Amino acid sequence: MVSITEKFATLATDNAPGQEVRQNAGNISEIMRGDKLSGRLVDFSHGDVDAFTPTPGAFDRFSEAVEAGGRQAYTEYRGSSDIRAELAERLAAFTGASVSADDGVILTPGTQGALFLAVASVVSDGDRVAIVQPDYFANRKLVQFFGGQVMPVAMHYMNSTAEAGLDLSQLRAAFEAGARTFLFSNPNNPTGAVYSTGEIDSIVELAREFDVTIIADQLYSRLRYDGESYTHIRARGLPAEKVLTIMGPSKTESLSGYRLGVAFGSASIVGRMEKLQAIVSLRAAGYNQAVFRTWFNEPEGWMDERIRLHQAIRDDLLAVFRSGGLDARAPQAGSYLFPTLPALSVGLQDFVRLLRHQANVIVTPGTEFGPHPNSVRLNFSQDHAATVEAGKRIVEMVRRYRGENS
Amino acid sequence: MVSITEKFATLATDNAPGQEVRQNAGNISEIMRGDKLSGRLVDFSHGDVDAFTPTPGAFDRFSEAVEAGGRQAYTEYRGSSDIRAELAERLAAFTGASVSADDGVILTPGTQGALFLAVASVVSDGDRVAIVQPDYFANRKLVQFFGGQVMPVAMHYMNSTAEAGLDLSQLRAAFEAGARTFLFSNPNNPTGAVYSTGEIDSIVELAREFDVTIIADQLYSRLRYDGESYTHIRARGLPAEKVLTIMGPSKTESLSGYRLGVAFGSASIVGRMEKLQAIVSLRAAGYNQAVFRTWFNEPEGWMDERIRLHQAIRDDLLAVFRSGGLDARAPQAGSYLFPTLPALSVGLQDFVRLLRHQANVIVTPGTEFGPHPNSVRLNFSQDHAATVEAGKRIVEMVRRYRGENS
Repeated sequence: MVSITEKFATLATDNAPGQEVRQNAGNISEIMRGDKLSGRLVDFSHGDVDAFTPTPGAFDRFSEAVEAGGRQAYTEYRGSSDIRAELAERLAAFTGASVSADDGVILTPGTQGALFLAVASVVSDGDRVAIVQPDYFANRKLVQFFGGQVMPVAMHYMNSTAEAGLDLSQLRAAFEAGARTFLFSNPNNPTGAVYSTGEIDSIVELAREFDVTIIADQLYSRLRYDGESYTHIRARGLPAEKVLTIMGPSKTESLSGYRLGVAFGSASIVGRMEKLQAIVSLRAAGYNQAVFRTWFNEPEGWMDERIRLHQAIRDDLLAVFRSGGLDARAPQAGSYLFPTLPALSVGLQDFVRLLRHQANVIVTPGTEFGPHPNSVRLNFSQDHAATVEAGKRIVEMVRRYRGENS
Repeated sequence: MVSITEKFATLATDNAPGQEVRQNAGNISEIMRGDKLSGRLVDFSHGDVDAFTPTPGAFDRFSEAVEAGGRQAYTEYRGSSDIRAELAERLAAFTGASVSADDGVILTPGTQGALFLAVASVVSDGDRVAIVQPDYFANRKLVQFFGGQVMPVAMHYMNSTAEAGLDLSQLRAAFEAGARTFLFSNPNNPTGAVYSTGEIDSIVELAREFDVTIIADQLYSRLRYDGESYTHIRARGLPAEKVLTIMGPSKTESLSGYRLGVAFGSASIVGRMEKLQAIVSLRAAGYNQAVFRTWFNEPEGWMDERIRLHQAIRDDLLAVFRSGGLDARAPQAGSYLFPTLPALSVGLQDFVRLLRHQANVIVTPGTEFGPHPNSVRLNFSQDHAATVEAGKRIVEMVRRYRGENS
């Protein structure tokens, strides 16, 4: 049994995106090499909703909900039935498999809210859960918080561009060892890798063989670059009860300030999630739920343009890194980039602090995503020119601190 | 160890406020006596924010936050530091003890969010927690969800008007049996009883003797009727680390649609809550947080008028019930009323269903709040005239179903 002190120790948020403001500068001046690098602050820990603004109409839908009053303030815990009906139809069309508005959808405070409720609904003391390395940092923490045991599955994301690089033999081994839940993000956070149809079908086959429940975090599945295809695991023949898909408009659509997420698919998991939401936060904020009306319902061409702009940033940032000797997989989707750093004379945490204090650049250390002490994650949904300049400062910082960590 | 199936069985929400829409009418026509009672639907399961509208300026503060953009969309997990600074000052003034803006305040998605995080931060497998009967239904569920054991403490709320009626010998017994946390609402939900200064000081004395942590849910502590005094437990001499106070603007201020709550006091508990919030929902919705700027900052006279209007409804509804033979304690604060029903020929769940289908009145069964099968809870923050008419229908329904449950 895990003590409550240990339980919270595993939840350390000191290096979590957005929490840097709570850190002290510490001994930074003692380890700093050379002068400060001037330039506009770029906070790559999350997207910049001033550079890429919220979906048109979002605020109007919110305003209408406030006007509507009590009907919209107090919805069912799983969210307004009208809005669930709209979303069920659109999510079915997007993913290629039916969604029940009545039993198979729950609105949550952000996709984080959906992930929390989903993991709580399937993972209990001692349960083994297969988790990809690297993957979204909260996945591991959620499993541990509910007393589960993480069974790591490597993703060899630098070896291929046609596949995400999931190590299927490790996935099988995790299932053979007793894991009955597989939680993964696709596109992968932090690498932007997209699972190929072959990989998804292999996962499906293994899940069927071992009766595994799939929780698929598809937060970035709309922001797909030129020529990239995408396979929704919920549409590949598993029993509907065994798959829960999680999405939300916080990233590509820049609606994070409204805290909206959705989980859909398995009615039994959604049922549990609602029961739990009743004691966690009651519901996604009532008025905010109305903002979902804009989702998968954006003005003609709006999403295409957003993708085009992100692709241009991706390409320029990759070029800066590669010409500076930093290797990175080109993300197929989403706005994360996960470059590999060469050997440095300082530890990763110190390098990240140096980037912040010396180079006005905030990134998230790779160790948040698993055992990846030679990487940092950047969310490049930012001002284009500022991103390129910040990328150059990162390259210069790597040059200055290159060496062996003594 | 509790299995995940049992864990979710204790989270039943079928009779939870607002969830009635998911129930079937069932065999209602077979047990119905007499015709339907016509009248405008009154949903006493929660306040009517169309009858008592949100604080003036709330929507304007929200709009400004959307305008402010990224700065307000992505706050620290514990909430915007500016807003925490404003609130710390006002909450200190209201409660009579200092609040640290930096370490002692966290903004949450509703007070429900604060309760969830607080209980998760102090209760773990096997821990005993003293819980009042009756008290807010989620308290018990939260303790059970985290593997804790509820140690019931009776409140003899019908015996006195000068005191809430807490059974202090039972509270001592719970502490002697090992409970190290006491979670209670004041004003009490569902009765509207307010703890006297003597009761609060007795709790403080016992808490000191047994090194108990206090979680005080003071959601309704601003809506106090004529001549009623109120004692904030955090200002009665316990070490600051041992007391966490929870409040929010969802009820009296009708801001439930924005989902805002706050917990303040103990820095160590707030610290844990923030770590947990990072995986539960990240933060209270960023734009919504700005609505807190209206809190404890309402227009001159606004709160007095709101209290006056609620007091008038309370008095009229009490008169209807008492003249109809239904006994109830007069709430000293808040907008809940918890009348005692006489012996009925149908069970409580059926009577509540009958009220809904036959009399167009929604109430919450007393069993949600503990072992109280002879009571129902009403939130009378409703249209005044409709409330009086609905109260009369409840009296008539009690008359029709009076008898012994066979």
